[in-house]
Amino acid sequence: MTFPPVAPPSRVLMGPGPSDVPPSVLRALSAPTVGHLDPAFLSVMDEVREMLRTVFGTANELTMPMSGTGSAGMETCVVNLVEPGDRVLVGVHGVFGTRLAEVARRAGAEVETVEAPWGRPLDPDDFRRVAKAGYDVLCVVHAETSTGVLTDLAPFAAIARETDALLLVDAVTSLGGVPVEADRHGLDAVYSGTQKCLSCPPGLSPITLSDRARQKLASRRSPVRSWYLDLNLIARYWGGERAYHHTAPVNMIYALHEALRLVLDEGLEQRYRRHRDHADALARGLEAMGLVLPVPEGSRLPPLTLVQAPDGVDEAAVRRHLLEQFGLEIGGGLGELKGKAWRIGLMGSSATTRHVTLCLAALADALHAQGFTPRGDALAAARARLGRK
Amino acid sequence: MTFPPVAPPSRVLMGPGPSDVPPSVLRALSAPTVGHLDPAFLSVMDEVREMLRTVFGTANELTMPMSGTGSAGMETCVVNLVEPGDRVLVGVHGVFGTRLAEVARRAGAEVETVEAPWGRPLDPDDFRRVAKAGYDVLCVVHAETSTGVLTDLAPFAAIARETDALLLVDAVTSLGGVPVEADRHGLDAVYSGTQKCLSCPPGLSPITLSDRARQKLASRRSPVRSWYLDLNLIARYWGGERAYHHTAPVNMIYALHEALRLVLDEGLEQRYRRHRDHADALARGLEAMGLVLPVPEGSRLPPLTLVQAPDGVDEAAVRRHLLEQFGLEIGGGLGELKGKAWRIGLMGSSATTRHVTLCLAALADALHAQGFTPRGDALAAARARLGRK
Repeated sequence: MTFPPVAPPSRVLMGPGPSDVPPSVLRALSAPTVGHLDPAFLSVMDEVREMLRTVFGTANELTMPMSGTGSAGMETCVVNLVEPGDRVLVGVHGVFGTRLAEVARRAGAEVETVEAPWGRPLDPDDFRRVAKAGYDVLCVVHAETSTGVLTDLAPFAAIARETDALLLVDAVTSLGGVPVEADRHGLDAVYSGTQKCLSCPPGLSPITLSDRARQKLASRRSPVRSWYLDLNLIARYWGGERAYHHTAPVNMIYALHEALRLVLDEGLEQRYRRHRDHADALARGLEAMGLVLPVPEGSRLPPLTLVQAPDGVDEAAVRRHLLEQFGLEIGGGLGELKGKAWRIGLMGSSATTRHVTLCLAALADALHAQGFTPRGDALAAARARLGRK
Repeated sequence: MTFPPVAPPSRVLMGPGPSDVPPSVLRALSAPTVGHLDPAFLSVMDEVREMLRTVFGTANELTMPMSGTGSAGMETCVVNLVEPGDRVLVGVHGVFGTRLAEVARRAGAEVETVEAPWGRPLDPDDFRRVAKAGYDVLCVVHAETSTGVLTDLAPFAAIARETDALLLVDAVTSLGGVPVEADRHGLDAVYSGTQKCLSCPPGLSPITLSDRARQKLASRRSPVRSWYLDLNLIARYWGGERAYHHTAPVNMIYALHEALRLVLDEGLEQRYRRHRDHADALARGLEAMGLVLPVPEGSRLPPLTLVQAPDGVDEAAVRRHLLEQFGLEIGGGLGELKGKAWRIGLMGSSATTRHVTLCLAALADALHAQGFTPRGDALAAARARLGRK
C-alpha cells in the first residue's frame, strides 16, 4: 500500500494563516538538515533569537521559537507563569481569549474572565475594575484571530503595573504585521506563530519573557506541569549551556531565519504601513460592494478583516467557489461566528495590491454566483485608497 | 541589523538523530504551503495516517503525527493516559526512562520505577514482581536512545495483560528501523520521532493509541492537563470532523508523507534487515579496532551503537575531529555516559555501506590523532560481515 508523492496545488493564501510563503523561505526550509548541536546550527539559533528580539521590540534574554505551533506558545507562557492556585484574569472577546482561559484552568489556576462582545476590543475600564481585586497574571489578546480585532495594549500594561500582576499577551496575528513593542509597553510574556505576518510555514511559536516573568519562573514552588514546554529546561539549550532538551526542528528554524531576514530587510515601519494600507484598501473595496465589516474602524486588525456574510448567501459555498475557481483561500467564521462571516487575511507576503485586487474581484464573482449583486465598484474604491490612477 | 541567508554545511549524520534526509523528502518539505483545512491537505493527512499505521503495525484509528518533536509525543501519551493520582510504573535504564518518570510525575501520577543498569535491557522478571502490586500504566522504553539498548516488548505486554494495566512504549529510535508491531504485542500507546529511522527532519512525533487507551481517555474524570496535546480535541481535527484545533505544521507533514512513502517502497522487512546488517558490520569493524561495545550482542539496538571511549582518549575531541575533518556527526554520551562514550547512529538513510565505511575510516583517523592505535583492520571486518570481497 503506497501513495503518489505529495503534489499540493498552487494557492493564494488569504485566510487566517498560513499566509503565502516567499520562495526563499521555502528554499531555506529545504536546506540540508544538520544536527541540533552542530556549531553551524547553534549560530543560526543565535541569529534567530537576535532577529526575533528586534521584531518583538525587546531586549529580553528569553526570546526564542518554541517547537510547536502558536497554541503551543500560548500553553508555554501559561504553564510557565502560572502555578496551581494562582489567580488569573483573562480578557475574552473571541476564540483565543476563551482558549487562554481554558489553558489557564488546566494549568491549575483560578480563572476569572472579563468579557467584551465578539468584534469589539476589550474595555480597559471594565478590566481594571475586576483586576483591582488582585491577580497573579493578566491575559490579553492583542490580535484576536477569530474576529479581526486589535486591542491597544498600553492601558492593559498600565493596569498590570498598578495591580502588580504579570501581563501575558497573545500576539499570534500581530507579530511582524502590527507593532508589538514588548519592552515599551512592559509586556511580561508574549507568544506568536510563524504562519501569520512572518509568512513562514506553521510549526513554530516565537515567544519572549521579561525579566520579571523569568524571576517568577525561577522562584516557582512547583515544577512546570509540562516537561516539553518547561522554559527552565529549554533556556539551557537556547542559552549559553547548550544542554540537550529535545531535538530542535532544525529545518523549520532555517525557514524562520529566512522569514525574519525578509521582515527586517523590508523594515518594520514600512511593513506595518504596508499591512495598514492594504487592509484599508480591502475594507474600502468590501464596503463599496455593500458588505458589512462588523469591527469598528478604529479597532480593526490590519492583517485580518472580518466580513459579515450577507443574508441568503451560503458562506461556505462562497469559500468553495473561491478555492475551486481561483485557488484562493479565505477563512470562515470561528466559534459563534461560524457560518456567519468570513475572515480575510492580509498577512506578511499576502498583504499586497495583487492579493487585494484578486480577492475583491474573485469575491464579487462568487457573490454573483450566489445571487448577491455587489453594489458599487470595489476595485475602484481599493485603487483610490492605494493612490493608484 | 540583519544576517546573511542560512547556508548549512553538508554533513553526514550518524549521531542519535537527525539522520540523513533523502533529497525527495527535502523537496516535499518545500512544496507550496496550503491551508490546514484545504481539501488537498486533508488527503495528505489521511495518507500519512494510513502509512503510519502500516509502519507501527496497527489498525488503531488514533494514529497520527503530533505537532512537536519526539518528547512532545512522550508527553502526549503520558498526559492523555494518566490522571492525577494514577499509579504509574516506569522501567528506567537510561535517559529516556528517567524522562518518562519525570513527565508522569508532572502529570500528577504516583510514579515508581524499576531500574536496570544503563547499557542493559530491562529485566521482565524484576518488572513483573513490582507490577503485580497494581498500576494504571506501565511504561517501557523499546529503544533507549541514550544507551543503544533494544528491549524485547513481548514479556512486558504480557505483564500489562496479567496486571490489567495500559502499556506505554517509547519507540523513538525504533520506528521504521526495528519492528514495533503495536497490535501483535498489544501496545496501548506508542510514540516516536521523525528524525531517526524515518529520515525526515525533526519536528513531528508519530503516535498510536489502542482502543483500550482511547476508552481510558474518553472516560477521564479530569481534563487532560495539556490543551495543546489533548487527544480528545486533536482527534476531532485528524478524524472525520476536521474541527480546527491548532494550525497543523503543513510542510513538515508533506515531508513525513514522502519519508513514509520511501519506507514502504523499500519494504519494512528489507528495511529492518538493512539496519541489522549494517549495525552488525559496524560492530565488527569497531571491535576489530579494539574498541569496546558495552551493550551485550543480543540487546543491541541496530539503529544506534554505543561505543566506550578508550582510556586516555578525549571523546569530545574525537567528535570535533570527525565533524571538522570529515563533516561527519556522531553523538556523545548522555547522562551518566557523558564524556565516556560515543553513540553512532545508522538510522534510515544513514544505514548504508557508505556510512559504515566512512565512519570506521574516519574514526580510525581521529583515534590516531589522539594517540590511540586501532588494533585490527576494521574495514576488512565490516566488509566480511556485509559479504563483500
